[in-house]
Amino acid sequence: MQGSRVMGSISEERNSLAEFRVGVDAVIFSIDTEQNRLLVLLVRRREEPFRGCWALPGTLVRRAESLEAAAYRILAEKIRVENLYLEQLYTFGGPERDPREAAEGYGVRYLSVSYFALVRFQDTQLLADGVEGIAWYPADQIPPLAFDHEEICRYARRRLCAKLEYSPIAFDILPSTFTLGEVYQLYGTVLGENFSDYSNFRARLLKLGILRDTGQKSTQGAGRPATLYCFDAAAFEKIRHKPMVFV
Amino acid sequence: MQGSRVMGSISEERNSLAEFRVGVDAVIFSIDTEQNRLLVLLVRRREEPFRGCWALPGTLVRRAESLEAAAYRILAEKIRVENLYLEQLYTFGGPERDPREAAEGYGVRYLSVSYFALVRFQDTQLLADGVEGIAWYPADQIPPLAFDHEEICRYARRRLCAKLEYSPIAFDILPSTFTLGEVYQLYGTVLGENFSDYSNFRARLLKLGILRDTGQKSTQGAGRPATLYCFDAAAFEKIRHKPMVFV
Repeated sequence: MQGSRVMGSISEERNSLAEFRVGVDAVIFSIDTEQNRLLVLLVRRREEPFRGCWALPGTLVRRAESLEAAAYRILAEKIRVENLYLEQLYTFGGPERDPREAAEGYGVRYLSVSYFALVRFQDTQLLADGVEGIAWYPADQIPPLAFDHEEICRYARRRLCAKLEYSPIAFDILPSTFTLGEVYQLYGTVLGENFSDYSNFRARLLKLGILRDTGQKSTQGAGRPATLYCFDAAAFEKIRHKPMVFV
Repeated sequence: MQGSRVMGSISEERNSLAEFRVGVDAVIFSIDTEQNRLLVLLVRRREEPFRGCWALPGTLVRRAESLEAAAYRILAEKIRVENLYLEQLYTFGGPERDPREAAEGYGVRYLSVSYFALVRFQDTQLLADGVEGIAWYPADQIPPLAFDHEEICRYARRRLCAKLEYSPIAFDILPSTFTLGEVYQLYGTVLGENFSDYSNFRARLLKLGILRDTGQKSTQGAGRPATLYCFDAAAFEKIRHKPMVFV
């Protein structure tokens, strides 16, 4: 390839570049262990396109704002929560994902950098704040959503299951001390009640060596008092690069 | 919050939105099992900023082009390969990642949707095609890179290790039949020679039930002929939703 041809192809490329608006959309999962429900936060759109349709809470990224800051801004506007897990999920950017794109000859595209967040329902307060059309929906019964948000939800749910199976994110949202029964209930709510029997789950979890017996007992619930554990961050740090499975 | 305040904040938000150029950058890993090396493909930048600096191969996304299509376009321009694994890695979009941003008051931002690809060195032909400044670098000895590409490389490497540990991507790039020794060598090249002893690795891998003995023997190499296996996609399909660990 010669210099002039290279320059030629570069300038052609410049002409055909897309300009983007970048949105951050958040799949906020809430685990309601008491009612054994996995919930997703949805908002009703007040603007076109898809006005009146349910959608994931989202925002367009502002000048000098990082993607993660935009994700936290969405969360802070919608919920107040004690413990939270947040990570970037995937970037959806196909040219057909927003009806505004084709109308403008794909010269302006709308990209969605999606995040998923995990909270416990019991710890989370919805900041409805006078705004109508914001609700927790059971993850199994979400209504039709705007854009490709149903696909984003499905993708987020697969990631959530994988994260619970392979990483200790459950302990990011549990209170600082917890019973093994509470951990089991949290896993069952997401993965389905039959994901594992309790004694296998308990044995596997304790064998990882990342939970510490606090010496205290839980006085809640019926039955005999259960041991309260805490997550041992130092022990986890030592093995974090080794593959592990929690279920 | 009152209606008028909501409208006010929406229009303020519009004014402060960033406009984006979206780049796709690819971390192309090549596994050279013969020399026990993990390599990364780098290109020398011919334009400002960071002119003359090494960088990940990348491109800006064109009109009507999907992110994935842009990633495949980068690959097709740089290498010819038989078997390939490709997935989206992460989107890097902090406001400080490109020196062009601050100069324009962060009104135009440069986002990088990164992908990582995995190929086998033996199967891969570099399409230098008259273009200077394209080379495989050992992943442990990469030179200083443009932008935040060193961070992207580190992130990709962690993902690569996790993928090998938890998923069967090795079989996407191995030939259709292979010996267990070849699989072990591939893993050792990425994870380090001491990641596992051979007999444990072999036992664990066979126990997963996703490899099928072809009944054929490998005639390559010294020592006695080794059994040739193939990946059993149907068997894997049945257990793909169960957590599994390969090492």
